[in-house]
Amino acid sequence: MKNKMPAPSDRAKVKVMPKRSHYEKETIYKILDAAFVCHIGFVADGSPFAIPVVYGRKDDKIYFHGGKGSRMLKTVKKGDDICATVTLLDGFVLARSAFHHSVNYRSVVAFGKAVEITNRDEKLVALRSITNHLFPGRWEEVRIPNEKELNATTVLSFNLKEASAKMRTGPVSDDEADMDFSAWAGIIPVHLVPSDPIPDDQLNELIKLPDYIRDLPGRMKSLDI
Amino acid sequence: MKNKMPAPSDRAKVKVMPKRSHYEKETIYKILDAAFVCHIGFVADGSPFAIPVVYGRKDDKIYFHGGKGSRMLKTVKKGDDICATVTLLDGFVLARSAFHHSVNYRSVVAFGKAVEITNRDEKLVALRSITNHLFPGRWEEVRIPNEKELNATTVLSFNLKEASAKMRTGPVSDDEADMDFSAWAGIIPVHLVPSDPIPDDQLNELIKLPDYIRDLPGRMKSLDI
Repeated sequence: MKNKMPAPSDRAKVKVMPKRSHYEKETIYKILDAAFVCHIGFVADGSPFAIPVVYGRKDDKIYFHGGKGSRMLKTVKKGDDICATVTLLDGFVLARSAFHHSVNYRSVVAFGKAVEITNRDEKLVALRSITNHLFPGRWEEVRIPNEKELNATTVLSFNLKEASAKMRTGPVSDDEADMDFSAWAGIIPVHLVPSDPIPDDQLNELIKLPDYIRDLPGRMKSLDI
Repeated sequence: MKNKMPAPSDRAKVKVMPKRSHYEKETIYKILDAAFVCHIGFVADGSPFAIPVVYGRKDDKIYFHGGKGSRMLKTVKKGDDICATVTLLDGFVLARSAFHHSVNYRSVVAFGKAVEITNRDEKLVALRSITNHLFPGRWEEVRIPNEKELNATTVLSFNLKEASAKMRTGPVSDDEADMDFSAWAGIIPVHLVPSDPIPDDQLNELIKLPDYIRDLPGRMKSLDI
């Protein structure tokens, strides 16, 4: 049996095209682990914002940073709710009718309050999760933050208990009456693909390319559907 | 001289890393024309939302749809402000220190009120702009919406007058003191790449692959930096 989230809250419940919705943790985590950018929705000075951040996931939490001067942090400090949304574009759906054009995608929308992490050890755990999100083992190789850098970094933790996933996969779905219409119809899959690493100009030539970079194309491919 | 936007409003002004900000229309339009998904930030029933949509741009407006049952539409109907954010991930920045890890990206954040388009002709112009956003000429080949479909589609227009762009490009920027630290440092560019089109099972074999699909890999490449 699938590991279900509790019954979704009203705001976490998918309203438009509910047949595309999913509430199982596995599905939600898999999408979060396949993406690199999350958009944080919040309200500051009465205005809605949607701001991109990088993130990491550990168990039922995602971690992200907010700059000290950021409006997002003000919202979090006030204890207001935020919305964290991750979207992966998987393909273009070209139907015979304009109306049935669409995209294949996977998305997660989660609601709740983010919490600022002030404990030093927890902060390092969260930053490690962000750094290693795409490059497992990277944190263990680089110079980890010193006290000054840690103090300059605001790290936020966000619980995924109120989340839903939505996705479209598969072929075109044209109306029966349009099947003879003379337009090309089909799917064009898209993928996020890394190109060759560009070493820093001053990189010591004795430092080899790490395996977690060499195997990146394969790992990114495995994140596709 | 560059075509400047008016002085940015407080909310449209980039607060964190202002040196990465841009307010010229050309820069803003170029980013919008290179991306396919926009996240709409809005408030419904007191809660912030960030919801992905596809869109099209024409002059100083972007167009997108909202489902009839969507909470977004409620916000728009009330005349409340929204935030429209587009983010392109261009690369991973692997520094010698965890602190200087980053991503290369281009983003646009715009604020204002969206307006529902009710005029039939304007609605068709907007839908054409969305359909042709990535596939110029597609609208002219497919079956355009009938009255029933038009009535079932809510189309929104959003003026870009209060917008800013933010981007990071270029190499790693490590601290001088870390230059001898023994970790690989450099950039890993990433690109959104289409793979081979998958024709619909029932596609009439006489229908050839249109040029705007055949030349998609080249066009998408030209949208990279």
